[in-house]
Amino acid sequence: MDLRQALQAADIYRAASAEALAARLAVRPIDHEQRAAHGFAWVATTVAALDAVQAWCESGQGANPLDAKIAALAFAEGIGQLVGGLAMGQNEIFRPADLGVGAAARTLANSCSDLLDSDHAAMRAEIAAALADGHWPSETLHDADLDAIRDQFRRFTDAEIVPHAHGWHLANALIPDAAVRAMADLGTFGVCIPEDFGGLGLSKLVMCIVTEELSRGWIGAGSLGTRSEIAGELIAMGGTDAQKAHWLPRIASGEILPTAVFTEPDVGSDLGSLQTRARQEASGMWVIDGAKTWITHAARSDLMTLLARTLPDAKGYAGLSMLLVPKPRGTESDAFPAAGMSGSEIEVLGYRGMREYALQFDAMAAPADALLGGEEGEGFKQLMRTFEGARIQTAARAVGVARRALELGLDYALTRKQFGKAILHFPRVTDKLAMSLVDFVTARELSYAAARAKDSGRRCDIEAGMAKLLAARAAWSNADASLQIHGGNGYALEYEISRVLCDARILNIFEGAAEIQAQVIARGLIERRN
Amino acid sequence: MDLRQALQAADIYRAASAEALAARLAVRPIDHEQRAAHGFAWVATTVAALDAVQAWCESGQGANPLDAKIAALAFAEGIGQLVGGLAMGQNEIFRPADLGVGAAARTLANSCSDLLDSDHAAMRAEIAAALADGHWPSETLHDADLDAIRDQFRRFTDAEIVPHAHGWHLANALIPDAAVRAMADLGTFGVCIPEDFGGLGLSKLVMCIVTEELSRGWIGAGSLGTRSEIAGELIAMGGTDAQKAHWLPRIASGEILPTAVFTEPDVGSDLGSLQTRARQEASGMWVIDGAKTWITHAARSDLMTLLARTLPDAKGYAGLSMLLVPKPRGTESDAFPAAGMSGSEIEVLGYRGMREYALQFDAMAAPADALLGGEEGEGFKQLMRTFEGARIQTAARAVGVARRALELGLDYALTRKQFGKAILHFPRVTDKLAMSLVDFVTARELSYAAARAKDSGRRCDIEAGMAKLLAARAAWSNADASLQIHGGNGYALEYEISRVLCDARILNIFEGAAEIQAQVIARGLIERRN
Ligand SMILES: Cc1cc2nc3c(=O)[nH]c(=O)nc-3n(C[C@H](O)[C@H](O)[C@H](O)COP(=O)(O)OP(=O)(O)OC[C@H]3O[C@@H](n4cnc5c(N)ncnc54)[C@H](O)[C@@H]3O)c2cc1C
Ligand SMILES: Cc1cc2nc3c(=O)[nH]c(=O)nc-3n(C[C@H](O)[C@H](O)[C@H](O)COP(=O)(O)OP(=O)(O)OC[C@H]3O[C@@H](n4cnc5c(N)ncnc54)[C@H](O)[C@@H]3O)c2cc1C
Ligand SMILES: CC(C)(COP(=O)(O)OP(=O)(O)OC[C@H]1O[C@@H](n2cnc3c(N)ncnc32)[C@H](O)[C@@H]1OP(=O)(O)O)[C@@H](O)C(=O)NCCC(=O)NCCS
Ligand SMILES: CC(C)(COP(=O)(O)OP(=O)(O)OC[C@H]1O[C@@H](n2cnc3c(N)ncnc32)[C@H](O)[C@@H]1OP(=O)(O)O)[C@@H](O)C(=O)NCCC(=O)NCCS
Repeated sequence: MDLRQALQAADIYRAASAEALAARLAVRPIDHEQRAAHGFAWVATTVAALDAVQAWCESGQGANPLDAKIAALAFAEGIGQLVGGLAMGQNEIFRPADLGVGAAARTLANSCSDLLDSDHAAMRAEIAAALADGHWPSETLHDADLDAIRDQFRRFTDAEIVPHAHGWHLANALIPDAAVRAMADLGTFGVCIPEDFGGLGLSKLVMCIVTEELSRGWIGAGSLGTRSEIAGELIAMGGTDAQKAHWLPRIASGEILPTAVFTEPDVGSDLGSLQTRARQEASGMWVIDGAKTWITHAARSDLMTLLARTLPDAKGYAGLSMLLVPKPRGTESDAFPAAGMSGSEIEVLGYRGMREYALQFDAMAAPADALLGGEEGEGFKQLMRTFEGARIQTAARAVGVARRALELGLDYALTRKQFGKAILHFPRVTDKLAMSLVDFVTARELSYAAARAKDSGRRCDIEAGMAKLLAARAAWSNADASLQIHGGNGYALEYEISRVLCDARILNIFEGAAEIQAQVIARGLIERRN
Repeated sequence: MDLRQALQAADIYRAASAEALAARLAVRPIDHEQRAAHGFAWVATTVAALDAVQAWCESGQGANPLDAKIAALAFAEGIGQLVGGLAMGQNEIFRPADLGVGAAARTLANSCSDLLDSDHAAMRAEIAAALADGHWPSETLHDADLDAIRDQFRRFTDAEIVPHAHGWHLANALIPDAAVRAMADLGTFGVCIPEDFGGLGLSKLVMCIVTEELSRGWIGAGSLGTRSEIAGELIAMGGTDAQKAHWLPRIASGEILPTAVFTEPDVGSDLGSLQTRARQEASGMWVIDGAKTWITHAARSDLMTLLARTLPDAKGYAGLSMLLVPKPRGTESDAFPAAGMSGSEIEVLGYRGMREYALQFDAMAAPADALLGGEEGEGFKQLMRTFEGARIQTAARAVGVARRALELGLDYALTRKQFGKAILHFPRVTDKLAMSLVDFVTARELSYAAARAKDSGRRCDIEAGMAKLLAARAAWSNADASLQIHGGNGYALEYEISRVLCDARILNIFEGAAEIQAQVIARGLIERRN
């Protein structure tokens, strides 16, 4: 079937869902209609993903025969989910009846009956066979520079990250300074920082490629840049000229490693209600008191982007300001040498390499020029705008993890024999691999679409949320499937997939949990904001 | 809607699926039609589960108002999955078109339109609210003795396991000898061993209750009995009188801890092809050579039930025999003191407390009377019959894990506040809890149904496979949902749910991977064997 037609039909279903949701929200607040609203967000995300896949497939002009097969399966699966049930979580299957759009779903099913009423087993087998022969679908971005950047980071990752990542994980080690330096030399920390300030001045699309390739080796490697991206964006978009001149070149070069200090013990998703206080003294100096938690890379970092309440009388997020707080880098023996700041490590399932900390601030001092942009009360919106890029970057991390899971599953399935043949030849293994490839490509293309939207300069929290939502699911389901392919060995710490499963699990939680992304998408679309 | 009617409609769909599969298998071997065959297995499992839920609900006669709600949601969800997509794995959604039974699915959907076309949000909210108020659905087995046994093991678990399990897990410690002793004193290891041989002589249903309650505290605790169950069944069903008299009382009392030695480095699912050799010497003594792996509790155990090839000329499984091989219990400093036997630990994500080992046998000796039943070539079938009980026991382990995940999610959701209220009040959290409860009850009732089938004395690998398949999925999805409810804290090793997620992941792999269960079910049903 013509994918454009299918896309159109899916879009009509999406519109019907939007209408149904709007009708509900006219009588009840969104918090009472979350399943319906978030289900709609997933519907819209699925349709956006199909759109991205279709555009990708067309842009390849049939040069790679795998592409059309993957696109066809992505459509069969995506529309199958729209019509039959979309897994927002493993036990939260959103179905048309949840929004009262059964009739629209039947119309969609009828328009796409040739896609939906076929058994795609043969196509899945062909895709897995192609993978087994070393073929991959197109990944060119039709731009030699971009493709060269991917290639460079892929080679770096294969040489410098893949061979060591699992050992670093098992030892709960910090990513070695030398690896950080090598990544800095490649420009990793300044991809999107303007050239005038020492960065590469490249697009979010490039950030995606870089992040995806590094995360394929290890989520820790692909995440080192997250904090530089956040600090870089905050400062580039909202900093004073002096702040830009001082910080951006150092962040871009990797001389300064930032840490993002937002979450508190009692405040995660509802960031606007945070309580850490910062007061300005007569001298102009800032004094910070409060507790933060889940702060990645807090010890081995030099600069905190710290969100605190400076206007206690302003309601909610309006009282929050962003501070740029320098701190001395910690060492193994003294993780937090600064006066007024202490911390303790939070041990975690995965996502190691930078370490997570709970922090306590007792009259920690920050210089007079710490206030981002020199303006109080702007911190929350500054951060929300920054989260767009951070969430797209997180989607790219998920895409890299999703790919690694597939690679490991494929390698294992090629070499492991049972019942007299490589297990790759059993359809249940074939299917896992083929669908992992489909989900990886789909998530990747949606993340690129979000990056392009961001590069166009418009507000894109909806697109960023969609990319993160879908890519996190793909990383998790690919890791789960690949571990299953590994059988008992998947459960052994010795095998890399056991780590990839743990790494993948974070993606649905941080940078805004899956439920928060769905809420942002639903609200944004219903209010027709972006 | 009347659940009996819905069940009938679902059963008609199951029959149509069976017919469609049979038609395919008439032309192509099952290994080429795995998606279709395994999908059918999942369809049949779903229908069997609904049957069990319906029987459970009816048996309660409406005394507990929660029961009917849970049954209704189980039906809406189960039939929703039959019609719209059944997750055999996160990226393997089986849909009617995979088997060409779209028309039968539409008929089912039409018969159940009142169930399928409703928005069940309010019902999920009511269920979660009941949970929040401390209400649970009925669990009585309508037999005071059985209920008393559950109560006894629940109290034991709450007092002796729950407070320590997480610490034991984090330390990768063996379950302390004192805890093993306390479990032995409760009769844990002899539940199904005949009274004549020192056991309790109770049913597989009791084994389920005991296992479920212990596993709720820790999968390690609920799994200690697995090896005793396997050894006890092997010997009770296939042993000589002397073997029964010698081993069964010691296993029942917990004096002897057995270990199950089947899997090899190159042989997991395809157990019939294993290569470890045992030769009988002129003296009658057995000599064992070969490698085994993934052997749980291999060090701190006294008896191996070891499957080895004794008839090298017989083809495949026909050459295998089961040996009862005594071994000295290892210590922390000398894990494998026996001559001819060495081992190394395999570190794992979860399922700790007994430890896993790769074993090497170099002329390890076993006494002349080691051969189970005194007959060679019977080992594989002896084991397959035993696996029925072991898989039902594994289903019960999964049920306990599924419940613990729900309990932890519920506790967290009651206490964690965001956006000014306990997160329990957000529908996305509510839904996860309500569906976790539904899936837990459904898996539990299906495992009881399998236990009752086993207690009736007939071959029941189909029922056992179904129970394990569904319960393992419920444990995994409940753990995943509960971790999500915990937000970032779910990712911290400090929180119990991080362990429960890891523990849950094993259930789809060992005792026959999910794909193997589906194969057993499909083949069994198609051949109308049981
Ligand atoms: C490994 C790791 C690294 C991290 N790194 C950093 C960092 O460097 N800097 C930093 O500031 N933070 C960091 N975080 C914190 C992270 O951003 C938060 O964990 C995340 O925002 C979720 O907040 P929470 O953990 O408080 O969960 P909560 O907000 O308590 O949420 C718990 C559950 O309730 C759900 N929920 C909450 N509100 C709603 C609602 N309105 N509707 C429906 N469901 C809702 C959530 O989706 C979630 O499932 C990190 C966390 C982890 C685990
Ligand atoms: C923690 C743990 C404890 C264990 N304890 C014990 C123990 O005490 N004693 C013991 O003997 N064993 C034990 N095992 C081993 C366990 O039983 C095996 O891991 C399991 O049977 C799967 O075998 P495998 O790991 O070799 O996987 P494989 O058989 O190699 O399977 C790999 C993948 O291929 C799939 N696959 C294989 N064949 C087919 C097919 N024909 N069609 C479709 N898919 C197929 C599988 O489903 C799986 O997804 C344990 C394992 C673990 C992880
Ligand atoms: C939940 C969440 C989306 C905000 O919800 P909220 O408190 O209801 O806030 P709103 O969405 O109403 O946004 C507040 C203001 O910021 C603005 N804003 C939000 N996102 C924006 C964006 N991407 N660009 C520009 N402005 C934005 C809104 O328009 C609103 O402005 P207004 O009041 O002038 O209309 C936010 O707290 C969040 O992202 N939480 C997750 C935390 C997280 O990701 N942590 C990761 C730490 S690493
Ligand atoms: C895959 C698997 C089901 C067997 O597949 P297989 O080699 O095709 O063997 P079959 O199913 O044909 O069974 C072989 C024989 O045993 C018999 N058999 C199998 N299960 C039986 C049962 N539950 N009761 C009685 N007999 C049984 C069969 O009827 C067959 O007998 P036949 O040849 O006389 O007809 C088996 O190897 C298995 O369970 N693998 C998983 C391993 C596992 O669970 N390991 C856990 C270790 S802790």
